[in-house]
Amino acid sequence: MIRLYACLGSGNCFKPWLAMHQLDIPFELELIDVLKGEQKSPDYLAISPLGVVPHLVTETGCGIGESNAMLWYLAEGSHLMPATREGRAEALQWMFFEQSKLEPFISPARFFTTILPDQRAAREQDIAAWQATADVGLSRLDAHLDGRDFMLHGGYSIADIATFGYVHVLEEAGLAMADYPAVGQWVDRVAATEGFQPLSDLGQAKSKAA
Amino acid sequence: MIRLYACLGSGNCFKPWLAMHQLDIPFELELIDVLKGEQKSPDYLAISPLGVVPHLVTETGCGIGESNAMLWYLAEGSHLMPATREGRAEALQWMFFEQSKLEPFISPARFFTTILPDQRAAREQDIAAWQATADVGLSRLDAHLDGRDFMLHGGYSIADIATFGYVHVLEEAGLAMADYPAVGQWVDRVAATEGFQPLSDLGQAKSKAA
Repeated sequence: MIRLYACLGSGNCFKPWLAMHQLDIPFELELIDVLKGEQKSPDYLAISPLGVVPHLVTETGCGIGESNAMLWYLAEGSHLMPATREGRAEALQWMFFEQSKLEPFISPARFFTTILPDQRAAREQDIAAWQATADVGLSRLDAHLDGRDFMLHGGYSIADIATFGYVHVLEEAGLAMADYPAVGQWVDRVAATEGFQPLSDLGQAKSKAA
Repeated sequence: MIRLYACLGSGNCFKPWLAMHQLDIPFELELIDVLKGEQKSPDYLAISPLGVVPHLVTETGCGIGESNAMLWYLAEGSHLMPATREGRAEALQWMFFEQSKLEPFISPARFFTTILPDQRAAREQDIAAWQATADVGLSRLDAHLDGRDFMLHGGYSIADIATFGYVHVLEEAGLAMADYPAVGQWVDRVAATEGFQPLSDLGQAKSKAA
């Protein structure tokens, strides 16, 4: 059975977890407490040499890092994968955009604003810089989503799941959803898709297999 | 015919350009002078709304951004695309790694060290920080390549082209190839693959169609 190593509250861990729910793929979930440094334990490094979460181990024992690579693996041949060559390229374009223009800025701003609020004051300058850079990407995303139902013309796909991971918690990074109205409407549409589970449920039901 | 918009010297532009040479795909090359700001001209923004290079336009007029998404588009169904589902996920894992742990640090360090050397002194502190972060990723890459011919067990693929784009010019970013011996050997192996063309040739022969 597929095994997902994940930590609570992570938008990156949320992506493969949601995809497996929506694709009805049974899996085992192993929670890694990154605030306690469990991702650097010898046991975990033997599984994920980079010491990062999420980490996915396939049924044949192949380890896959990088949340968006996991989405690709899970979705191949399913309705979450675009059916055309151009659609697949378009999906990857937005998945690379997410990992270079959104996640590297929303994620740390959120971490030091909401997950470790004790450090908020000390990181004020960094947080402002991350928010400003995230705003550039989010404004571009808002323009893209204006007049569209989902990221791609072909409908809901892994490009939506990848983008949703951190974008739907942008207010926890001190940004305002009201500044990105098309994004806000799209977030509601994604949350209404079949089999959707909220990030807050990750780790609450220990696994789909349990 | 496929049209590639690219600028001279760019590791990201080099990726689809090399892939089209190695896959024997005819294409037209349009050079964009980013040092003159041509990527922000109204004409170019009508083609690439983000104003970035590279940008690929397919034979049906579909625009694709993000160099690694272009690689995927170009390589589908070819020998540069892994033949298994796990191999494709592994390729994407390294392609996302390249865009998050290598390119964002090697590229700006190289830009302010080699491409605009006049700004080197003023950006000394930034350059040192980029180099230090690039070293973390490069050390991980060196460990991965130790004892391997190419990035994936299945042989030379788009995962190599994606990684090669900026890694092979790391000395232009003020880093030392001697610090990453397995990377150095792999660079030589990639440069010896069939149909290889060096980055210095990009833009010299205006296009494969010409």
